[in-house]
Amino acid sequence: MSLGPGSSEHLTPRAAEALHEAEVVVGYKTYVGLVAGLVQGKDIRASGMRKEIDRCREALDLALQGRRVALVSGGDAGIYGMAGLVFDLCRAHGVTVRDGREEAKDSSDALPVEVIPGVAAFNAAASLLGAPLMHDFAAVSLSDHLTPWEIIERRLEAAAEADFVIAIYNPRSATRPDGLDRARSILLRHRPGDTPVGVVHKAMRDGQRCLLTTLEGLDPEDVDMQTVLLVGNSHTYVWNGWMVTPRGYLDKYGT
Amino acid sequence: MSLGPGSSEHLTPRAAEALHEAEVVVGYKTYVGLVAGLVQGKDIRASGMRKEIDRCREALDLALQGRRVALVSGGDAGIYGMAGLVFDLCRAHGVTVRDGREEAKDSSDALPVEVIPGVAAFNAAASLLGAPLMHDFAAVSLSDHLTPWEIIERRLEAAAEADFVIAIYNPRSATRPDGLDRARSILLRHRPGDTPVGVVHKAMRDGQRCLLTTLEGLDPEDVDMQTVLLVGNSHTYVWNGWMVTPRGYLDKYGT
Repeated sequence: MSLGPGSSEHLTPRAAEALHEAEVVVGYKTYVGLVAGLVQGKDIRASGMRKEIDRCREALDLALQGRRVALVSGGDAGIYGMAGLVFDLCRAHGVTVRDGREEAKDSSDALPVEVIPGVAAFNAAASLLGAPLMHDFAAVSLSDHLTPWEIIERRLEAAAEADFVIAIYNPRSATRPDGLDRARSILLRHRPGDTPVGVVHKAMRDGQRCLLTTLEGLDPEDVDMQTVLLVGNSHTYVWNGWMVTPRGYLDKYGT
Repeated sequence: MSLGPGSSEHLTPRAAEALHEAEVVVGYKTYVGLVAGLVQGKDIRASGMRKEIDRCREALDLALQGRRVALVSGGDAGIYGMAGLVFDLCRAHGVTVRDGREEAKDSSDALPVEVIPGVAAFNAAASLLGAPLMHDFAAVSLSDHLTPWEIIERRLEAAAEADFVIAIYNPRSATRPDGLDRARSILLRHRPGDTPVGVVHKAMRDGQRCLLTTLEGLDPEDVDMQTVLLVGNSHTYVWNGWMVTPRGYLDKYGT
């Protein structure tokens, strides 16, 4: 299930209800901490980074024992979150999954799973910047932990070439200090140096920081793994401190 | 502000609060209808399709008169929604906009605007299908109302070539009956005919319909403007009725 960006203002009622109903809450400790107030007294299983498979396996084991489990993801569980791994593991281990939104059929011993959507990190980031994602966009993670760097480069190249707005996830980590610079070089082959870039750190939670810069001006020191970058397309403008990608209404119809 | 996919279960508390605070609610009639129960007794200005500029201008006029206005969008207002047009029009008419989340500075007569994010249509659609958007993805609208068809084709081509999962918005309309077939032909140049495609109609509201098919099997009759299509990448699988794009955890670490 999805926690949204962090603030309870953007946690959906369905997600809040699922937390309330859960007996066990499993998740990355930072995300579990975001909803500490909502899960007091529950069986909490919080763990650190890179423990995704362990967490997911634990959640499945508990659910197969008949416990009601909330496996939490920051942002949207279906976007670079935990939802996929649940299905991957069930498939690998022959655990049949049924839609948890529906009543069980009499004879079914399948595991009920409900993927609860949420406000994704880039939706939250975009809303703080203005309206940068109004037109076709691509989301690319710079993490080469599971994806070969060549594929990441190819996607950046394609997205830049076809003039997508680009949301960059996991833009920088200690193990890949030069990834962001390499990504920028690719984008600069297709876009001018003054292309607007929104840098949003911890959107809608404590420590939130937003800034507007350009492809050329982007300082990697302003970026870490909790940052989302939004890179404008050829029509994106910055006005009065807002970053906006027009869809083209005014070009077509006037003001 | 964003209404999310439709059901109040997925309307964020901040969005509900904004509706509650508003004196006037402006929006496309279908979306205003989704929250009819929350806006009773308010001044409602609902209008039809293709009236985006009129709606937005009306909302701004009212706000400039000092009224508290909620301009509603389905899904996320920042993704193919109304947020961009607000800034476009303010910029064109020299109306300074300040961040409505912050207290007014003493001397400011700028218009306070808050973009309230929401659960976008493709987040909702993905959660119903399983976890198809777990890896890099591109969102492309097939509407050529404001965007030249050549640009749409170029984006489809780039996204397909670089193996993005692709979310297709506005896949079909009466005025472009062949757009979807042309889009499919482009995708089929880069992906096999058995590539999974999720077809989600009215996600999380009355009339919801989900089906899984393939690029080759996709029947345009199942698709209209209220449908979102999710086209898998080369790793996307269908299992037990679920559509999932793995990030690669199990390939790297085993099960």
